[in-house]
Amino acid sequence: MTDTNTQIQLARQPDGEPQISDFQVAETEIPTAGPGEFLARNIYLSLDPYMRGAISGRHMGHSRSNQGDLIGGRCVAQVVESKHADYAEGDYIVIESGWQKFVVSNGGAKDQVRKLDPNGGPLSAALGVLGMPGLTAWAGVERLASPGLGDTFVVTAAAGPVGGTAGQLAKAKGCRAVGIAGSDEKCRIVVEEYGFDACVNYKKDNWEEDLKAACPDGIDVYFDNVGGPILDTITQQLNLYGKIVLCGLVSQYNRSGDGDFHGHNMGPFVGKRAQLLGLVVYDYYDQIDAFLKAAVPLVKAGKLNFHEDRAEGLENTPAHFAKLMSGKNVGKAMVTIGPEKS
Amino acid sequence: MTDTNTQIQLARQPDGEPQISDFQVAETEIPTAGPGEFLARNIYLSLDPYMRGAISGRHMGHSRSNQGDLIGGRCVAQVVESKHADYAEGDYIVIESGWQKFVVSNGGAKDQVRKLDPNGGPLSAALGVLGMPGLTAWAGVERLASPGLGDTFVVTAAAGPVGGTAGQLAKAKGCRAVGIAGSDEKCRIVVEEYGFDACVNYKKDNWEEDLKAACPDGIDVYFDNVGGPILDTITQQLNLYGKIVLCGLVSQYNRSGDGDFHGHNMGPFVGKRAQLLGLVVYDYYDQIDAFLKAAVPLVKAGKLNFHEDRAEGLENTPAHFAKLMSGKNVGKAMVTIGPEKS
Repeated sequence: MTDTNTQIQLARQPDGEPQISDFQVAETEIPTAGPGEFLARNIYLSLDPYMRGAISGRHMGHSRSNQGDLIGGRCVAQVVESKHADYAEGDYIVIESGWQKFVVSNGGAKDQVRKLDPNGGPLSAALGVLGMPGLTAWAGVERLASPGLGDTFVVTAAAGPVGGTAGQLAKAKGCRAVGIAGSDEKCRIVVEEYGFDACVNYKKDNWEEDLKAACPDGIDVYFDNVGGPILDTITQQLNLYGKIVLCGLVSQYNRSGDGDFHGHNMGPFVGKRAQLLGLVVYDYYDQIDAFLKAAVPLVKAGKLNFHEDRAEGLENTPAHFAKLMSGKNVGKAMVTIGPEKS
Repeated sequence: MTDTNTQIQLARQPDGEPQISDFQVAETEIPTAGPGEFLARNIYLSLDPYMRGAISGRHMGHSRSNQGDLIGGRCVAQVVESKHADYAEGDYIVIESGWQKFVVSNGGAKDQVRKLDPNGGPLSAALGVLGMPGLTAWAGVERLASPGLGDTFVVTAAAGPVGGTAGQLAKAKGCRAVGIAGSDEKCRIVVEEYGFDACVNYKKDNWEEDLKAACPDGIDVYFDNVGGPILDTITQQLNLYGKIVLCGLVSQYNRSGDGDFHGHNMGPFVGKRAQLLGLVVYDYYDQIDAFLKAAVPLVKAGKLNFHEDRAEGLENTPAHFAKLMSGKNVGKAMVTIGPEKS
């Protein structure tokens, strides 16, 4: 165990894409668990696109961060000392810990701390395919879009944990799954590792033609993780009465001002008689057991796969986050803070 | 009977809001009904906002009009001579006749000619509350939004035939109906004639506050006839999981170019977990009997009222259309071309 609690704090508000220099490393005292509390050491830190908006106060429930504030974030952690009746030393948990090595908690609300089943799949998966990104994908597929057998299901950011899981869940339900991703390497992962029927690299010229070829019967469901002009382009290929799950707007997350966004013409949505369905994963926290009941067996059967992009060491978190927000990462972005077994 | 068939044709493509000088009057020969055809004289011509997009080729199924083209439009008409087995002299019909005094038809597709039940309500209502506008409203309320008892239902262009009918249908289903319209006179009609619970004049400063006061429990369903910034403002007051029927984009219809539109940020729709439902009335033509079964008794019972804005004489159609597209008309815009009884 180290002697201090390393934290990553905000140095200054990012302007557009975050830079390493927007963050600072601070050494603080390791906190002490009081009565009814426990101390945990963080193992894996999840990096997610929503964090960019959270830092700038644009993500729901997050106020704008100030210089010196600990950056928020979810970790897989292990309890190292407990004065809490429900948590024992050695328990593995997922906790909203922030970008730091140690955290003290009183157990908080259900969405703040979740105990992990040791037989529930790989520990790190609790941040990705079996965590919030997986729950997001499941909610969009099962609770909103509910695609039918033989439907063509298209998803963007398909190499990432939400998109990759959404497509594999749709495939498991009997759909044709077509991914969209930003590089040939990402597309290779989507098809070869995730088992999608096809994947289109949207950075190629005429990718719309590639998408048409990949979706000969049109698109029945589009799970949108990016927003922006890609949403408009895909809507052109949506079948009448198609559904669009509005999940993420990654293309908009790096913007600095309110006016700096891609505005959508609603006319094509009307013309397609589209159903647009807004998805916020917070609404489904209380359904995580139903999600895990569906997803854990698929993971164990090798039908729900994932790809991780790990950085080693908390101090490398800002660089890894900058990579994520520039679209250069592949798969679920996370940082290894400590070993799984202490 | 006159000796010639007066037509209103396009003189030049409108630039933005249509002007009288964009149209020209032409005298042509009265057409002759051949075998399997009938000749009808037009009585009432419907003027509708979609026509603006149709003239410029922006409305689905309509190619851009050229100089000299007859302007399209729907009329209540009476058969004056028939060589068609299904239509007899004296029958009243609704027909896609165009802006002219006479029309010959072979009966066409179901969406082109519809015979009117003489006991089915006032003749002119077949262009408004009991016609396509009414069917549009019914489809949005009954087939898409399906609001629940006690829901707050908000609709724009509430003095118009779609909005006015939508709110009255929602009210008949046990909703609180709140209209939005562009003048105090329109709001008076909405409340006093249509029986809405409230109506807000969006041209007043702080109309958002008036809307909040009119919707103390928030908005459950928003039936959008206008698009543009008003859609964004109303979305702010939508309850979580609220529904938005995307029906019309009147605020966008006068635009001349493709780039000239109000772009919507999709983020607030996600934040509200909104369902956006695109509505195109064409899809519901085959359900017109179900609609009339619901609407005719309401009209006869005085629970589904309408307000007409009539111009007299075909030659006054361009001016009346310009008035409609400038938002100055009140109620269902139509032109009286001839008497109900010949």
